[in-house]
Amino acid sequence: MSKIRTNSAPELFLEVRRGNAEPLHVQLEQQLREGIRGGRLLGASNLPSSRALALGLGVSRGVVVEAFAQLAAEGYLVTRPGGSTGVADSAVVAAARAQPARPRAPRIEFDLRPGRPDLDLFPREVWLRSARRVLAEAPSQRLGYLDGRGVPELREALSTYLNRVRGTAAGADAIVVSSGFTQGLALVAGVLVARGVRRVGLEDPGLAESRRVIAAAGLTVVPIAVDESGLRVDLLAAADVDAILVTPAHQYPTGAVLAADRRAALLDWAARGDRLIIEDDYDAEFRYDRQPIGALQGLAPEHVVYAGTASKVLAPGLRLGWLVLPASLVEPIADAKLRADLGSPAIDQLIVADLVARGDLGRHLRRMRPIYRRRRDALLLALRRYLPALKPVGASAGIHVLAWLPSGLDAARLVKVAAEEGIGLAGYSSPTATPDGIVFGYAAASEPAIREGISRLAVIVTRTGVSRRT
Amino acid sequence: MSKIRTNSAPELFLEVRRGNAEPLHVQLEQQLREGIRGGRLLGASNLPSSRALALGLGVSRGVVVEAFAQLAAEGYLVTRPGGSTGVADSAVVAAARAQPARPRAPRIEFDLRPGRPDLDLFPREVWLRSARRVLAEAPSQRLGYLDGRGVPELREALSTYLNRVRGTAAGADAIVVSSGFTQGLALVAGVLVARGVRRVGLEDPGLAESRRVIAAAGLTVVPIAVDESGLRVDLLAAADVDAILVTPAHQYPTGAVLAADRRAALLDWAARGDRLIIEDDYDAEFRYDRQPIGALQGLAPEHVVYAGTASKVLAPGLRLGWLVLPASLVEPIADAKLRADLGSPAIDQLIVADLVARGDLGRHLRRMRPIYRRRRDALLLALRRYLPALKPVGASAGIHVLAWLPSGLDAARLVKVAAEEGIGLAGYSSPTATPDGIVFGYAAASEPAIREGISRLAVIVTRTGVSRRT
Repeated sequence: MSKIRTNSAPELFLEVRRGNAEPLHVQLEQQLREGIRGGRLLGASNLPSSRALALGLGVSRGVVVEAFAQLAAEGYLVTRPGGSTGVADSAVVAAARAQPARPRAPRIEFDLRPGRPDLDLFPREVWLRSARRVLAEAPSQRLGYLDGRGVPELREALSTYLNRVRGTAAGADAIVVSSGFTQGLALVAGVLVARGVRRVGLEDPGLAESRRVIAAAGLTVVPIAVDESGLRVDLLAAADVDAILVTPAHQYPTGAVLAADRRAALLDWAARGDRLIIEDDYDAEFRYDRQPIGALQGLAPEHVVYAGTASKVLAPGLRLGWLVLPASLVEPIADAKLRADLGSPAIDQLIVADLVARGDLGRHLRRMRPIYRRRRDALLLALRRYLPALKPVGASAGIHVLAWLPSGLDAARLVKVAAEEGIGLAGYSSPTATPDGIVFGYAAASEPAIREGISRLAVIVTRTGVSRRT
Repeated sequence: MSKIRTNSAPELFLEVRRGNAEPLHVQLEQQLREGIRGGRLLGASNLPSSRALALGLGVSRGVVVEAFAQLAAEGYLVTRPGGSTGVADSAVVAAARAQPARPRAPRIEFDLRPGRPDLDLFPREVWLRSARRVLAEAPSQRLGYLDGRGVPELREALSTYLNRVRGTAAGADAIVVSSGFTQGLALVAGVLVARGVRRVGLEDPGLAESRRVIAAAGLTVVPIAVDESGLRVDLLAAADVDAILVTPAHQYPTGAVLAADRRAALLDWAARGDRLIIEDDYDAEFRYDRQPIGALQGLAPEHVVYAGTASKVLAPGLRLGWLVLPASLVEPIADAKLRADLGSPAIDQLIVADLVARGDLGRHLRRMRPIYRRRRDALLLALRRYLPALKPVGASAGIHVLAWLPSGLDAARLVKVAAEEGIGLAGYSSPTATPDGIVFGYAAASEPAIREGISRLAVIVTRTGVSRRT
């Protein structure tokens, strides 16, 4: 062991050990580097000579010379005129800065936030089985640089699956895999901007995240009203938009199904003006009291971009989504995907392809549907019992319910107070005259947790804590 | 079975089977939907009555009524005045369009393209072992919506690993995980633009992909010359740039190591003007005849963005990279990552964290180094033997070698002709006066393939096919 006494305190203790996995000179380098970085060897201080240090450490002088040479090459040390070695002035002292702890969000005990599947029921065993197959069988080139559209196995599997289950008309060549819906929408928005599109219609009420993504691309967002039959397609003509983002199978957040005559009118609007419909099919796999509604895309594949996601059917953490595109958009979107990140991770894509092709995704959904249905029933029952003034709508499908608040009740305030008491919710406040609403997600909480959460929420509502605005 | 005769040919055959997994009405819906989409049921044609069709199919009338109702709700069918059912005019016929086959790139028999590790040697067993552990142990919330910085397990593992192996001064809180280097650089470029940066310096010669990413963010790219001691730091002052992208440990493509005095001068330049160094540390884990050069970031963490990637040490298809950031950039970059795609996939991040923390990545690298070293030796020997006029440089580290071409030889032309004969290469043509070069990657080809590829390349070069420009 050796002490280096610097011209200001403190001392630096150095120690090298034979038999360590690292060679002696590497051990010495690491300790000197750490010492300089930690500010324990100051810029002005000369080091002992290599001979003296070697003696102190009980190593050959060559070990020290090699360590000094390495640190000089890296810029930590300089050789001074006269041959002494010192710490370089440019070795900016970077004392380990303690990062300020982030303010912790209060723990959510009752998670009724929308858009979240039950992650405890993620099919881990099934995923691992597919991972084993993929790692045993995938050709090596799948681990290399990728096609912008995604691995062919996944595009093939999705094509068959979506055409059968969602009524799309999707060739594998029309599919581009994205890192979730958010990225997919951003890619589409970017390509639309490049094609001269300026105004895009969005459902109102609608998903705030989509509004942000479209606006971030430089597009003007035009809100289009929604009623109990979905998007007010009759308002499109006057809105002067080149594209519209819709949730026809299960409107977010109202849960409305786009009525048949409006579907026809919407497709007609798109076809006549060569406009684009972006169909956000985020949770159509979950339905309880009604038949599934097939995708619009199947009716007009050249006018509809269909967007799906693994976030609700499997898990958001997979960050996997897919776009089914009109032929003219496939290349531009695949190029945009390459420019963004050179493609989504291959192994995950291959695993999901295996899950879909083997029917494991279908089996998982069949397992989840009755569970989510019971949770939905528990939520509706609890709302009727504890908060009868709230009017839930759109409960026949999906994994959330919108409940309009009695006029004058402030959604944002209620969400905030509820969060402080451990209840996770999302609020909806309309910029227009409609009342505020609360969006309850029921997939991620157990039936007892839903009942308990709603009964506690009722206490908060009746307490003066959330006052009426009137 | 039942035939529907449309008013123009062809007929549509319908068949429903009991005992099929799908209910009868769903089978009927699917076939009608397909028939309409395939153009086999034209817009003008009325369908038989539900009673007649039920009789033909041998099912109850309720089955047909339910199928018709569903397809009407989806917009495929309309009920005409008088009660007959027909195909909706808005059901735009989308006959399955055969996608034009993409022109196939010629097969690469000898893959000497740079930047590609040997994918046949990807540690599949080790990956699967980590996957098993992650799926058994990871908390459910890791599968939910993510932090913009990446999962904490990976940031912790990278912090320890990079500080030890690359000499960084990286706290886990300073790391943001990205979908590969390309996305990481795009995120940094976007944040720089938002902060008012306009001009960014790039090494010349350098990586064309980086130039593209930086320019795409709206920044002006300023080329800064490189010589055998790396970036000409003395040219920076006159270049009037606010940031510089460098490859100090192993310049791409020349392989030069940034000299110690230039490292000091570069850090000084950054500190004095509050400028930013972006350190692309793409392949520093591979070195053969020299000591590793520690990262610049360790000397000045507040002036350097360190960028690393799993593409060379594991596989490009993982699309995983990492940034070590100055404190003031962590939040903006994490926010930009959320805006881009809500974070990188969680399971992959957890697996890489496990690989790194358990030392499996280190073991993999120790296994690969001698293999790549032998391939490099085979390449240098083959070049000396078959193409002695080429002058390879920068061969002591990395997984590529740059060879300057004799003056007058055209790199782009040589690369093109070689590709047609199954040899994959990359060329470098300088916009300035220096000669062209070929960048040989040697990691992805076996020693015999390297020898054979170079001997065939020599034939191409000596053949008149690639003429001198003089």
